[in-house]
Amino acid sequence: MSTIDAATRERPLVALAMGDPAGIGTELAAMLVSSLTVAAAARLVVIGDRRILEAGARAAHVALDIETVESDAIGPASRPVLIDLRNLAPADVSIGEATAAGGRFALENFTRALRLAQDGKVDAVCYTPFNKKAMRQAHPGYEDDSGFVAEVLRLKSRAREFNVLDTVWNARVTSHIPLKDVAASLSREGILAEIALTLDCLKRSGVDAPRLLVAALNPHAGDGGSFGMEEIDIIAPAVEEAIAMGLGVSGPHPADTVFLTAIKRGYHAVLTMYHDQGQIAMKLMGFDRGVTLLGGLPFPVCTPAHGTAYDIVGKGLADPRASEEAVMLAARIAARQLEARVQEQG
Amino acid sequence: MSTIDAATRERPLVALAMGDPAGIGTELAAMLVSSLTVAAAARLVVIGDRRILEAGARAAHVALDIETVESDAIGPASRPVLIDLRNLAPADVSIGEATAAGGRFALENFTRALRLAQDGKVDAVCYTPFNKKAMRQAHPGYEDDSGFVAEVLRLKSRAREFNVLDTVWNARVTSHIPLKDVAASLSREGILAEIALTLDCLKRSGVDAPRLLVAALNPHAGDGGSFGMEEIDIIAPAVEEAIAMGLGVSGPHPADTVFLTAIKRGYHAVLTMYHDQGQIAMKLMGFDRGVTLLGGLPFPVCTPAHGTAYDIVGKGLADPRASEEAVMLAARIAARQLEARVQEQG
Repeated sequence: MSTIDAATRERPLVALAMGDPAGIGTELAAMLVSSLTVAAAARLVVIGDRRILEAGARAAHVALDIETVESDAIGPASRPVLIDLRNLAPADVSIGEATAAGGRFALENFTRALRLAQDGKVDAVCYTPFNKKAMRQAHPGYEDDSGFVAEVLRLKSRAREFNVLDTVWNARVTSHIPLKDVAASLSREGILAEIALTLDCLKRSGVDAPRLLVAALNPHAGDGGSFGMEEIDIIAPAVEEAIAMGLGVSGPHPADTVFLTAIKRGYHAVLTMYHDQGQIAMKLMGFDRGVTLLGGLPFPVCTPAHGTAYDIVGKGLADPRASEEAVMLAARIAARQLEARVQEQG
Repeated sequence: MSTIDAATRERPLVALAMGDPAGIGTELAAMLVSSLTVAAAARLVVIGDRRILEAGARAAHVALDIETVESDAIGPASRPVLIDLRNLAPADVSIGEATAAGGRFALENFTRALRLAQDGKVDAVCYTPFNKKAMRQAHPGYEDDSGFVAEVLRLKSRAREFNVLDTVWNARVTSHIPLKDVAASLSREGILAEIALTLDCLKRSGVDAPRLLVAALNPHAGDGGSFGMEEIDIIAPAVEEAIAMGLGVSGPHPADTVFLTAIKRGYHAVLTMYHDQGQIAMKLMGFDRGVTLLGGLPFPVCTPAHGTAYDIVGKGLADPRASEEAVMLAARIAARQLEARVQEQG
């Protein structure tokens, strides 16, 4: 086997589902297809409509060199391939507008990508940004991406969402719930499970000895019980148990400095207790160039953290870096999983 | 009257209470005394011990040129003066250590400064960083700076704490309380009062048409009631009432982008619902170079936002910019108040 064949074999197959067609996603998909960075890390299987992808290539000023294949015949192609679902005519796209047609297109592509991964035909799934309003128009039961994945894959539990920015991951114990319910939703067992899951996902992404900081819930981490007891009663015991299990964990740390501490001391992840505790920090640190990873699934699912950016569609302003990062992260995790499988079989 | 006399007369008298003597505060005090930026904006009345201040000057490598005066004879001096309380011998200072002696020194200086302002002998109060542990050793009832001010001045209500970074102020509706109690502590009236107070303090600091953004409480501002009702039931009605009163207010805005929006659109302040909502953002944006202002008092009280920095004492690493900003802000507010008083009398 030649060196090129070996290298080709090692690059995981990443399905790229085209997202909302009214946003910058079509440009991003075309840019990913022509990206050498991406090509070095993954073999891309784009899922969508060739006409839409071609429009994206024109808007992004990139040449589109991609062969159409049937989904049963993805094969060991060394270059990107397209599964052309012929599911949206360019005339039916209203640029910069959330429509049911756009939502249906994104959902169809995403569903097909997830099924390919479930059937072992690709190793990972990525998608360009969705528009939540369009998704709900197309599928009223649509709540969020992680809920939809659980629905398609018939999972009992949701995937866990990680926000990844540069070298720091943010995981959270609670997410889309009212702030008043956060404290009552915390438990020692729940926090311990999130710590373990986050460290596990980090390992699977290639971090051999992952280290995680756990955020406190209350101001000044409760100041020794003066402003809340959850640190003493729930969070610290969970951290202590994790440490006793040999996990690389420290906390609870005051929420207003926990990200600064993580960066300064080279921690790989911060586990926050609620949505905004992490999101305020991540967005200020530039999470628009970050990646959202759905972890705890049989295969990685990644997407750029930014949205559809309706205001800059077709202007040549779309920045592909977050999308490239999404593919690279998915490819890295998939490659690790392939390696692990080979070792198990060997 | 010569031009110099006129300029001198216009500069407000700012009492500078020396804070914790074991930290970088003594160096900062000495640097402020020799700062031309400060001299152009304020006449400094340092309160503390000359021996400690001299030690600070040596550590900061600045020449100390300051005359000692009695507190009754501050007068219209054009240069910084010192009220020497002779209350701490350098031999009794343990550098980098929180002690009752250090706490007593800081509390004495601060108390004297507050009384001078209360008696109209100075126009504003500033202080170098306190160490909370030392304060509690010296005064077990000490909770925080704002509580101590209320105690000394016998105020019925506490001063409101504003965090000021560059051009953005952060005010908060709740502060040192458990997170689980935040939602129940919000009321339309309370939020409206905070909006009005913040805009008022901004005006008094020299912003003629202040504009403020109000943060939401729940993730994604509750997403239309999906994750919490406080936006709909409490926060939006308060904002609408403020707008009806002609105030420059907008909100509720999702907490994870409200500071980015404020900066981008030139808002002067963000009103957050709880402590960490603002502090996570402010600390990431570099609040260590920011200023804490106690507002809503008869005179401004300011201090640098950073702490005593025990680890860098005496190493020539202390950065005086936040302390300079504190004096400048206090001076600006005091000057406005003096102007307003002259206009009332005129």
